[in-house]
Amino acid sequence: MISKKMEGMVANSSAIRAMFEEGTRLAKIYGAENVYDFSLGNPNVPAPKAVKEAIIELLEKEDSLVLHGYTNSNAGYEDVRQAVADSLNERFGTKFAAKNITMTVGAAGGLNVILKTLLNPGDEVITFAPYFGEYRSYTNHFDGVLVAISPNTVDFQPKLDEFEEKITPKTKAVIVNTPNNPTGVVYSEETIKKMAAIMEAKQKEFGTEIYLISDEPYRELAYDGVEVPYLTKYYANTIVGYSYSKSLSLPGERIGYLVIPDEVTESEKVIAAANVANRILGFVNAPTLQQKVVAKCLNEKTDISYYDRNRETLYNGLKEMGFECVKPQGAFYLFVKSPIEDDKAFCNEAKKYNILIVPGSSFGCPGYVRIAYCVAYETIVNSLPKFKELAAVYK
Amino acid sequence: MISKKMEGMVANSSAIRAMFEEGTRLAKIYGAENVYDFSLGNPNVPAPKAVKEAIIELLEKEDSLVLHGYTNSNAGYEDVRQAVADSLNERFGTKFAAKNITMTVGAAGGLNVILKTLLNPGDEVITFAPYFGEYRSYTNHFDGVLVAISPNTVDFQPKLDEFEEKITPKTKAVIVNTPNNPTGVVYSEETIKKMAAIMEAKQKEFGTEIYLISDEPYRELAYDGVEVPYLTKYYANTIVGYSYSKSLSLPGERIGYLVIPDEVTESEKVIAAANVANRILGFVNAPTLQQKVVAKCLNEKTDISYYDRNRETLYNGLKEMGFECVKPQGAFYLFVKSPIEDDKAFCNEAKKYNILIVPGSSFGCPGYVRIAYCVAYETIVNSLPKFKELAAVYK
Repeated sequence: MISKKMEGMVANSSAIRAMFEEGTRLAKIYGAENVYDFSLGNPNVPAPKAVKEAIIELLEKEDSLVLHGYTNSNAGYEDVRQAVADSLNERFGTKFAAKNITMTVGAAGGLNVILKTLLNPGDEVITFAPYFGEYRSYTNHFDGVLVAISPNTVDFQPKLDEFEEKITPKTKAVIVNTPNNPTGVVYSEETIKKMAAIMEAKQKEFGTEIYLISDEPYRELAYDGVEVPYLTKYYANTIVGYSYSKSLSLPGERIGYLVIPDEVTESEKVIAAANVANRILGFVNAPTLQQKVVAKCLNEKTDISYYDRNRETLYNGLKEMGFECVKPQGAFYLFVKSPIEDDKAFCNEAKKYNILIVPGSSFGCPGYVRIAYCVAYETIVNSLPKFKELAAVYK
Repeated sequence: MISKKMEGMVANSSAIRAMFEEGTRLAKIYGAENVYDFSLGNPNVPAPKAVKEAIIELLEKEDSLVLHGYTNSNAGYEDVRQAVADSLNERFGTKFAAKNITMTVGAAGGLNVILKTLLNPGDEVITFAPYFGEYRSYTNHFDGVLVAISPNTVDFQPKLDEFEEKITPKTKAVIVNTPNNPTGVVYSEETIKKMAAIMEAKQKEFGTEIYLISDEPYRELAYDGVEVPYLTKYYANTIVGYSYSKSLSLPGERIGYLVIPDEVTESEKVIAAANVANRILGFVNAPTLQQKVVAKCLNEKTDISYYDRNRETLYNGLKEMGFECVKPQGAFYLFVKSPIEDDKAFCNEAKKYNILIVPGSSFGCPGYVRIAYCVAYETIVNSLPKFKELAAVYK
C-alpha cells in the first residue's frame, strides 16, 4: 500500500535496522560494555556547558511568544542570521549579511532546501565516492540524478579527471563534503582551486550555472592544525550547508544553516526560493529556541581532543594489526580497507566479535568499511583485542 | 537559475511577503498599536509555564548526549512515543502503543512524511475547500494531484455528494482539517460517519485503500464545549497528524506527531516507511529536547479562554456591522464573506484602514477573507471602529 519508491527504501533500511537490533541483542547477552558499536555518527562528547546556560538565559529573558513563535521570515530570526554572518565574516574574511543566511533543520534539511530550490527533473548532481548515502535520496526527491565520481582509494582526494569528464550540460550541482564522511579526508586548497577552475570552464563551455554545495557538518572537527578552506572564496556559485550537530553535539536538535552568498548567480532569487522551500517542504523554520542558542554559542566548540585521542588510538592500533587505512584529518570516521573483497561479509564477521561497523557499499565504495570513532575512549581501548582477533581470521 | 517549479512559488510567495512588508511599513508610519495584523496563525497566548519548567528540569536531570542526541529510531524516543500513546488512549479510548506514534517536525513535517510514504506519481489527494493552501505544495512534492471539493458556503461542512463523485481509483488519500483553518468549523460526528461510509464503500468498489489523513493542529482549540470526534474510531485507514504549535503555543519549535494505528492496512509497513521518510526527507527526527518537553506537558493546554473572548468580541462586532460569517466552533480564524466578489480587492481596501487580512482565494475559496484572531485582545477592540469604517465603504 505504500508508494513504490518507498518499498525499496524500506527494504534497504531494514538491513540497517537489523544492525541496530543486533547491537541491542548483543548488549543483552554480553553486556553493553562488551559490544563495540561503531555504526553511528552520534557524538559522544556532551554539548558545551554554554548550551545549557544559553537555554536557561533565553527562558528567563526572552518573551515566550518570540522564543517559541514562528519567525517573521521562514529563513529564521534576523538577529540570529546576522550573528551567524558576523561570525563567519570574522573567521573567514567573508562579507555575508543576514540575508545570506537561511537557518535550517540541520544540514539534512538545508541540503533538501537547496536541492528543491535548484533542481529540475533530470538535472544531474555530481558527488565523489565514497559519499554519504542520503545524497541519493535527497537528489531523487526532486527527480534529479546523482552522478558519483569513482573513489580514489590512494588518498581519497577527488578524482578530478573523471570529474571534468562527467560534467554535462545537465550538471546543476556538485556536492562536496570535507572533512569527509566516511573517510575523514580534508580537501586541500590546491584541490579546491582545481575543482573551481574546472567548474568555471564548464560553466562557460555549456553556458550553464553549476552550483557547488559544500556540506560541512564536520568543519570544526579537523586535527593536527589542518586548514579546511572556506569554499565560497574559491568559486562564486558556492552554497554552504552547515550543521551544529557535531560542532556543538546537538544532532537531535536539528539546527544548521545555508549560506547563499551574493556572488551566487541571481542570488536574490535563490535566497527567496530557499525561503519558500524551507516552508513548503514542511520544515517551516529551524527550531526557534535552538536558533537563539547557537547564536549565543558561536564561539563554542566541542572538545575535539576527545575525538583526537580516539583517532590516534584506533588508527595506530589498527595499523599495527595490518589493517590498511588513510589517516583521517577530520570528522570522526576511519575508512578501513576490508581484508576481503566482500565488505558486507567482513562486517558480518566483525559482528561475531561484537564489533559493529558499516560496509563501504553504503557509501558507494565497496571493499571498505566505516568505523565511527565518536564513542567512549574505553570502547576504543577495549575493542582493540577484539579487532586483533578479527584480523587473525584473515591471516 | 532556480527550478521551474520554484519560479511560480516564489512569484506567488512574494505577494504574501509584500503583505508582511506592508505591515512593517504601516507600523512605522502609524505605530504598531494602530496596525491590525490579522494575517498570521501565530499564537498570541504564551506557552504554559510548565513548558519552561520542563525544559529546566530536563537540562538538570537528563544526560546531554541523550537529550540532544540522535534518537535510536527516527520516529523518536520510545518513552516519549509511549507517553503520547498513553495520553491519547486515556482521552479517546484508543489502543495505541509507542510503535503507532512517529514524532515529527510539526504537523507540516508529519503531512510530508505520510504523503511521501503513500503517494505514487499521479495519485489523487482529496481535500475540502476552503483548505490550507500548503496541502497543494505537499501533494505536488510527491507528484500527487490535489483534488479540491468545492466549498459549501452555507455552513462550511464538507459537500459529501461531490466528495463521493470525485473519489476515483486513483484516490489515495483524503485530508481533513477539523477544527478547520480557515473557517473554524468542526466536523460533526454525523459528518464523519457519513464520510467514513463513503470511503469504505469506495474502497470496496475500487479494491483500493483510501487513507483519511486528519490534520489536527487545532484539536484543543474548540469552544462552547463542542466535541471534536477522534477519527481513528470511525474509519480504519485513518492517520492523524498533530502539532503542539497551537495547543502549547510552540509553533517555532516544530514539534508534533503522526498516529498510524494498527487498524491501517499493512500498518507495520506504513510505520516503517514513515520512519524512513522522516529520515530521508531531511527531518531526521523531531527536535529532541522538545520531544521530551511535550511528553512532560501532555496535560497542559493553552489558555483558550483568551481566544474565546477574541472570537466573541470580533464575531459579534462584525455581525453588528453587517458582515456575514459562520460562527467558528474552533481554531482561531473567522472566515468572513467579502462584501464584494473580488476578495483580493477587499483585502487591499482593508489595508487602507491598517487592517491586514488574507483573501479566501489563498484557501481555494474566493469571495471570502480569513481573519486570524490569535492577536492581543486590545487589537480586536481597537480594530472594530476601523472595520466599521471599512464596512461603510460598501454601504
